[in-house]
Amino acid sequence: MPTPEEMRSAIEAYIRMMCDSDVDGILDLYSDDGTAEDPVGGTIQGGKDELRKFYAGTAPSLQVEITGPIRVSGHEAAVPMLAELTMNDNKLYLDVIDVMVFDDAGKITSMRAFWNPAEMRPTR
Amino acid sequence: MPTPEEMRSAIEAYIRMMCDSDVDGILDLYSDDGTAEDPVGGTIQGGKDELRKFYAGTAPSLQVEITGPIRVSGHEAAVPMLAELTMNDNKLYLDVIDVMVFDDAGKITSMRAFWNPAEMRPTR
Repeated sequence: MPTPEEMRSAIEAYIRMMCDSDVDGILDLYSDDGTAEDPVGGTIQGGKDELRKFYAGTAPSLQVEITGPIRVSGHEAAVPMLAELTMNDNKLYLDVIDVMVFDDAGKITSMRAFWNPAEMRPTR
Repeated sequence: MPTPEEMRSAIEAYIRMMCDSDVDGILDLYSDDGTAEDPVGGTIQGGKDELRKFYAGTAPSLQVEITGPIRVSGHEAAVPMLAELTMNDNKLYLDVIDVMVFDDAGKITSMRAFWNPAEMRPTR
């Protein structure tokens, strides 16, 4: 099982890479059969090809900051975040919680993002 | 599917009932086959008898406050919290994120609590 420090480091790297649109870096954090469900209840992207398309499509206009402690529990972790999206020069803000499951090698096997498109707002 | 408002109300009631040690009230929020995994990676309590024992054992010394927006996504929701435990007149604090899944009737079918006992601390 990865240590809490390893899981926290992976999540911090993930957030940094999201801000930098570093799709290759993000994909390297995932296991080969890793999945992303963003938002929860939506389509589950599975495997590196689907993940690459997903992250290449979402990354450019997105900035994310961690807004509270990363809670690690077993080989999973949950992190509260604020996302800032820029659309046509307008900024939109959204509260998100990501839940990630890690394998023994410390790679992400599942990422699930809790947020609701109806709750985007023009201020932080 | 329950509305975001119904899921938020259920979670707020859950937190209030945790603070009030209202075990009957908490159990009524769950579906008959609802499960609790607290912490994630630990034992999964399933069904009302096991849930009753679990909540009766944990509730008396526990206060919980919501520390950020409840993120609703599909028929699930995630909520960041700070827990305050009183043990032998000493207070301990712990960051928690609960993830809850709801059925069509708005009852909790799964509650998973992300926290790490190693991270309890004497200050908020």
